[in-house]
Amino acid sequence: MARLHVPVRLRWSDIDAYGHVNNSAMLRLLEEARILAFWAPDADETPEPGEYPAPVIDGRPGSGTLTVIAGQRLEYLASIPYFRRPLDVQLWFGRLGGASLDVSYEVCSPAGVTPPVLYTRASTTLVLVDAATERPRRLSDAERAACEPWIDEPVVFSRP
Amino acid sequence: MARLHVPVRLRWSDIDAYGHVNNSAMLRLLEEARILAFWAPDADETPEPGEYPAPVIDGRPGSGTLTVIAGQRLEYLASIPYFRRPLDVQLWFGRLGGASLDVSYEVCSPAGVTPPVLYTRASTTLVLVDAATERPRRLSDAERAACEPWIDEPVVFSRP
Amino acid sequence: MARLHVPVRLRWSDIDAYGHVNNSAMLRLLEEARILAFWAPDADETPEPGEYPAPVIDGRPGSGTLTVIAGQRLEYLASIPYFRRPLDVQLWFGRLGGASLDVSYEVCSPAGVTPPVLYTRASTTLVLVDAATERPRRLSDAERAACEPWIDEPVVFSRP
Amino acid sequence: MARLHVPVRLRWSDIDAYGHVNNSAMLRLLEEARILAFWAPDADETPEPGEYPAPVIDGRPGSGTLTVIAGQRLEYLASIPYFRRPLDVQLWFGRLGGASLDVSYEVCSPAGVTPPVLYTRASTTLVLVDAATERPRRLSDAERAACEPWIDEPVVFSRP
Repeated sequence: MARLHVPVRLRWSDIDAYGHVNNSAMLRLLEEARILAFWAPDADETPEPGEYPAPVIDGRPGSGTLTVIAGQRLEYLASIPYFRRPLDVQLWFGRLGGASLDVSYEVCSPAGVTPPVLYTRASTTLVLVDAATERPRRLSDAERAACEPWIDEPVVFSRP
Repeated sequence: MARLHVPVRLRWSDIDAYGHVNNSAMLRLLEEARILAFWAPDADETPEPGEYPAPVIDGRPGSGTLTVIAGQRLEYLASIPYFRRPLDVQLWFGRLGGASLDVSYEVCSPAGVTPPVLYTRASTTLVLVDAATERPRRLSDAERAACEPWIDEPVVFSRP
Repeated sequence: MARLHVPVRLRWSDIDAYGHVNNSAMLRLLEEARILAFWAPDADETPEPGEYPAPVIDGRPGSGTLTVIAGQRLEYLASIPYFRRPLDVQLWFGRLGGASLDVSYEVCSPAGVTPPVLYTRASTTLVLVDAATERPRRLSDAERAACEPWIDEPVVFSRP
Repeated sequence: MARLHVPVRLRWSDIDAYGHVNNSAMLRLLEEARILAFWAPDADETPEPGEYPAPVIDGRPGSGTLTVIAGQRLEYLASIPYFRRPLDVQLWFGRLGGASLDVSYEVCSPAGVTPPVLYTRASTTLVLVDAATERPRRLSDAERAACEPWIDEPVVFSRP
C-alpha cells in the first residue's frame, strides 16, 4: 500500500457559481498531480529531498516520449469547497501494461482537515508514445522499476 | 436514433503545447454542449427556430433544481487540432432513471469536414437535486416527456 | 466609425462564485474575439458571407507570423452576468504603427438586450513578429489595406 | 522597499500551442498571487510562520466585503516557458486611496533561476465594496495599517 500524496492548489477560477469546484476543473487538478508526481524536474531544478518522490516518466515536450491520455473515469462523491490550502491528491499505479498504465486517484481534503473527506475517485489510462514514430512504445525496465513502489490495487468505483 | 447536434466552439486556450486540445479541456466542452442543448434560454431570449432543440431541464442557478454530476467517463480516440469552426458535439440520453440520467456524447469534427472524424466518446451521470432540500428529486413527467425524443442506446466504449 | 461586432459565447466556467464573469476570464474573451475577427479561416473552411468580416492578419501557428501581445489594458464598468447568448464584442484598430498595432474593444451585452450595457473597455498592443527570425516585422501594404476600414479613434478609458 | 514574494505555480493548461504561458493566463496568476498574499486564511487553517505574510483584507465570499476589480494593466516583456517550480510573483501596494487601492506586480522567474528574468509588469485597481449595500466603503484604519509595510512606488511601465 503505497500512495503518492501530491499537494495540488485550487485556483479561484476552479470555483463556479455554486461556490464549489466545478466538475470540469477536476481533470486539470489530476493533470497537475501527475506532473508533480511523475515528471522529471525542470532542467535547472534541484528538488528538495522528498519533494517529488517519483519522477518516473519523462513525458515533457522534448523528452522523446508523449504520454497520451486514452481514457478517464471520474466519480464525484462530494462537492469541494474553496480551500486556500492545497488538496491532498493521492495517486498510484493501478495497472502496468506493456505500453500503457492506469493511474488511480483519490482526491481528498487538505492535509490537517479532520476528519478527512474523500471528494473524488478517478482513473486515467495513459499510453506511452514515441514522439518520433508516433507509435506506442513499451515501458522500459527502468521505468517499470521506478513505478514499482507505487503499484497497488486499482481504485474501486461505487457504480459499475 | 435521435441525437442532438450542438456546435461547440473551441477556445485557443483549449490548445496545449502539443498543438492539440488538451484532454482536460474536454469536460468544459461537454458542459457547454449540455448547457446549449438542455438549459432553458436566457429569460429575455427568443431562440431562433431549431436553435436549441431540447431545453428539457432547467438547471440554472435560481431554477430550484441542481443538476449534480455524479460521474463521467471519457475515451479519447484521436487528438483534436485547432478549428476556428465549432466542433459537432452529438449527445443524447443513454439512460433515464428515477432521479438520475446518463448523457452519452460523441465529439466529432466540425460539420462539413469530410470524412468526419470521431474524436472522443463520453458519458455523464447527472442527478437532479432539489435546491431547497438538497436531496435528489425524481424527474417530472414533463421532463421525462421532453427527454423522450432524445433517448437512444448508451454510447459504447472500446475498453471495458 | 467602423467596428467589428464579434459574437463571443461565455462558458459556464467563466462564471465565478459571485455569479459573474470573473475578471480573469476577460482576456480569453478578447482573444476569442480577435481570432474570430482577424485570423484567416480554417484551411478547408468556406466562411458564410459576412461571417468573418476582416481576416486581415494570418497569425496562426505555421503562418510565418507571430502576433505577440506586448501589453493590455482593461477597465471594468459593470459585472457581467451569465448569458447563454454570445456577448457582443466590438473591436477596431485604435492605432496602426510600423510593426505594431493597438486593438480597441468595447464588450457589450448580447445583441437584442435593451438597453445595451457596456461592460468592459480594453486595449491590446500587438507586435507582428517574423516566426523565422523572431524579430518584429513591418505590416505589409496588403495587411495595412485590410485593416484600413476598421481604424477609428482608440477607446477612451475613464481613468488616467 | 518592501515587496511580497508569492510563489505561484503554473498549470500545464496555462501553456499554449507556442509552448509559452498564454497572455490570457496572466490575470489568473495575478489573482492567485493576490489571494495568497492578502486573503485571510481558511477558517480552520494554521498558516506556517511567514507563509502568508500579509492577509490584510478579508475579501472572501461571506466576509461582508467584495474586492471589485476596476481596472488592470499588463506589459509583457518576455514569454514565459513552462516551469514546474512556482514563479516568483512580487506584489505591493502602489497606491492607497479612500475606498480603492492599486496593486503593483512584477512576475519573475522561479526563485533560484540565475539571472532572474522579469517577465511581466502589471497593475490592478481594486475597489472595496460593502457586500450588503453594494456601495464602495472606505478602507478601515486596521486595513490601512496592515497595508502600510507593503506600500511602495507604483510599478513603472515602459510604454505610456
